[in-house]
Amino acid sequence: MLAIAKPMRTVTGLSNPTVKYLRSLREKKHRRREGVFLAEGLRLLTDARESGRVPQMLAMAEGRDHHPLLDALIAAVEAEGGDVIEMSEAALSKISGKDNPQAVCGVFGEFDTSVERLERSASPIFLVAQALRDPGNLGTMLRTADAVGAGGLVLIDDCADPFSVEAVRASMGAIFTVPLAQARWDEFASWLHGGEGQLVAASLRDAVDYRGAPYAAPCFLMVGNESRGLPEEYEMACDLRVTIPMLGRADSLNAAVAGAVLAYEALAALRP
Amino acid sequence: MLAIAKPMRTVTGLSNPTVKYLRSLREKKHRRREGVFLAEGLRLLTDARESGRVPQMLAMAEGRDHHPLLDALIAAVEAEGGDVIEMSEAALSKISGKDNPQAVCGVFGEFDTSVERLERSASPIFLVAQALRDPGNLGTMLRTADAVGAGGLVLIDDCADPFSVEAVRASMGAIFTVPLAQARWDEFASWLHGGEGQLVAASLRDAVDYRGAPYAAPCFLMVGNESRGLPEEYEMACDLRVTIPMLGRADSLNAAVAGAVLAYEALAALRP
Repeated sequence: MLAIAKPMRTVTGLSNPTVKYLRSLREKKHRRREGVFLAEGLRLLTDARESGRVPQMLAMAEGRDHHPLLDALIAAVEAEGGDVIEMSEAALSKISGKDNPQAVCGVFGEFDTSVERLERSASPIFLVAQALRDPGNLGTMLRTADAVGAGGLVLIDDCADPFSVEAVRASMGAIFTVPLAQARWDEFASWLHGGEGQLVAASLRDAVDYRGAPYAAPCFLMVGNESRGLPEEYEMACDLRVTIPMLGRADSLNAAVAGAVLAYEALAALRP
Repeated sequence: MLAIAKPMRTVTGLSNPTVKYLRSLREKKHRRREGVFLAEGLRLLTDARESGRVPQMLAMAEGRDHHPLLDALIAAVEAEGGDVIEMSEAALSKISGKDNPQAVCGVFGEFDTSVERLERSASPIFLVAQALRDPGNLGTMLRTADAVGAGGLVLIDDCADPFSVEAVRASMGAIFTVPLAQARWDEFASWLHGGEGQLVAASLRDAVDYRGAPYAAPCFLMVGNESRGLPEEYEMACDLRVTIPMLGRADSLNAAVAGAVLAYEALAALRP
């Protein structure tokens, strides 16, 4: 069945229902209720389109110059029967919460993030983050997961919302390309034990040097919360505990940095 | 000469000059004018104290419980003739810009960040960031520099302010332990050529794999701006250009992540 292209429409005023709806999506409860999330900027939306993800709704500043990537985006949204909406820069500012808003933003349907959707055979490497609280760190881990060709990022326990504007922005488009799973620890552990998979913790307890450690594919590399690290119980449930040398005063790295250092080490060991 | 301990004093009201002064230090122009910066939280201030850095002024919420680390901090400030000030939580909130402020914050004199203060023999590794705009990334690089025992972090061209509250927080105390230098490119290049030192760029141009590359101490590992990377001229001036494999859709890592992946690789090659 062919989708019917809707005509582009213009909304005016800051209290317009569409502007209010888009603005509300900055809050998690509204995203959850609607099952959608916001992504901002032509580059991010183009990454999405090239990955086969087209927004349900596209909002842009009125009177902007033509741009071939924007035209391609509009055409893709219209071809799938989505809404294309023009509004004032002031309205876009209200949505983005910034004085200089991106000239375009899109509303995407949230993805299914059940752990069962991960494919163990997709890659030798998966990243796992436990109780990661900072959306910037979360987005950065998605970006790293993309870079190492990971089969996915698994979010364990209460993490920041991967569909927040901040996490989506920090992912630099990886939100659209990296398989994402969300699960409680028990649920993840049970899924993991249902097949092949080595669980590796970044740890200080009873750990071997991360360099030259016996990584095995599919390798699930897990980092913990920014302040508390991983719960001891989780570390003890891992097949391998590895430690990254800390030569200075501090006893830990930024969580996203630790994940990346491990991921590139495991990649060197496991890349075919 | 023995410093005379001043008595602890209590300030009241949100428009008190001390509260206004502290609040003003969230802005770069006021920090520059006063030559000081703010650090928040007992843990950070204790890291500073243990590194031999004591605040000129210590502000804390009135009526908090005794804590041995806080007592040690107060004693250190008083021993150096600094101010210890109690105020309401509301006043601390105003200073920190947060609803739940840290119970304590301190004012420190800015450090001399001239590149001449770096010691090439201090470590086989130095980090260099060019036009790094995000204070969180900057603080994270300081933290990584501490972790790899780097001899310093050099900030080239217009970077975020390393003395901003955000950068200080993200550094997790490394602002107090890692030698920090700020310089224009020409100034840095001229200093570097005045002695031993290999300049290495994270690059896609004419680059070798970062793994197993011929790193040589003292090795200055340079990453570029978050959006634009390094200027081509800077890359071409490097002794070595290395590339980190990118297996996904994106063509770059987060700048602080790239710096850390390189730093740990160089560390493995150069650590005595």
